[in-house]
Amino acid sequence: MTLFGYWRSSAAYRVRIALNLKGLQYEQKSVHLIKDGGQQHAEDYADLNPNKLVPTLVDGEFTLNQSLAILEYLEIKYPNINLLPANLADNMKCRALALDLACDIHPLNNLRVLQYLTGPLAQSEEQKMQWYFNWLEVGFTAFEKSINKVAGNFCFGDHVSWADLCLIPQVYNAERFNFDMSPYPLIQRVVAHCRTLDAFTKAAPENQPDAV
Amino acid sequence: MTLFGYWRSSAAYRVRIALNLKGLQYEQKSVHLIKDGGQQHAEDYADLNPNKLVPTLVDGEFTLNQSLAILEYLEIKYPNINLLPANLADNMKCRALALDLACDIHPLNNLRVLQYLTGPLAQSEEQKMQWYFNWLEVGFTAFEKSINKVAGNFCFGDHVSWADLCLIPQVYNAERFNFDMSPYPLIQRVVAHCRTLDAFTKAAPENQPDAV
Repeated sequence: MTLFGYWRSSAAYRVRIALNLKGLQYEQKSVHLIKDGGQQHAEDYADLNPNKLVPTLVDGEFTLNQSLAILEYLEIKYPNINLLPANLADNMKCRALALDLACDIHPLNNLRVLQYLTGPLAQSEEQKMQWYFNWLEVGFTAFEKSINKVAGNFCFGDHVSWADLCLIPQVYNAERFNFDMSPYPLIQRVVAHCRTLDAFTKAAPENQPDAV
Repeated sequence: MTLFGYWRSSAAYRVRIALNLKGLQYEQKSVHLIKDGGQQHAEDYADLNPNKLVPTLVDGEFTLNQSLAILEYLEIKYPNINLLPANLADNMKCRALALDLACDIHPLNNLRVLQYLTGPLAQSEEQKMQWYFNWLEVGFTAFEKSINKVAGNFCFGDHVSWADLCLIPQVYNAERFNFDMSPYPLIQRVVAHCRTLDAFTKAAPENQPDAV
């Protein structure tokens, strides 16, 4: 399998954790999101992924974009390690937690959106950070409440799930911009535990071949 | 089942189409996103859905947020009608198409985001619409390309899927603001076909009990 990604992409980071947890071998191809005006806009990459976003997974003849679709694919094709609970209700709750992060925080704070704010909308760096912190605060406040009755070592009890795979990259991003995580003790507890695990550490941005 | 939603919410609209296609009975409870400063912020609703967004599905004792998690739940619990292909690769492609819309267009253009642009970021109505149209254009251009080799009557061949359930509400929103859909003939063809179907018509915003 080949994963087209970028070291700092939260969405690629999610998939790297899943691949590592399942013990799958994969090759990484770096799509540098800034160099050359963004290599994701190059014609050959846009043919692979019309959204011009990362990640894209290529498994033999099969090409798939969208990190959550890729997680689903890996879940079905490589069920040796399950990253969602077997119980229907628990399974759905973990999916919803992952989507809370992947739909309601991450799309608002990714690179192209921040570039649009400071470019066409002519916002200052300060306004950009106000925007960025606002959606983190709204999202993490809700997430902290959502996991209040279910968190264990992980977001949902003591079994790693997609919720953790989406949370760790989002928190990495928040910390990178010095966002104060102290109002979210449950999130911090889960993050601290995940960071003790090899699959998470190996997937961290600074440990990728294209890290600068 | 009870669906907490709002007539103009794209995410609630997706779920209504799924419920209708599967022939399921459900009660609707309206969460008015504007009245009273937004009823989604009321304490009792925020306890049900900490994200203070719609929809939320309540099925007996089970409560679930996130429209795509709700679609998954309905798919597993009520498999009488399948809204995803059985074949693994096709199934994943439909999921990715749905996520293209649900992650890469919709979160950028929903009410709370537009309110933040004109509120705290003090953008004009014109700048707000520039933002809105930009993400529609970026997203629909990619989507049109993505369905180029696979579209039939629906986004993916001749079988309705989550891709259609996400597309129709997004196009409804675009048309509401007079966004020009003519550069997207495949999308327009799929939308025209879906609009001939009762399940889609019954789910349309103007046909909901809380429509104004």
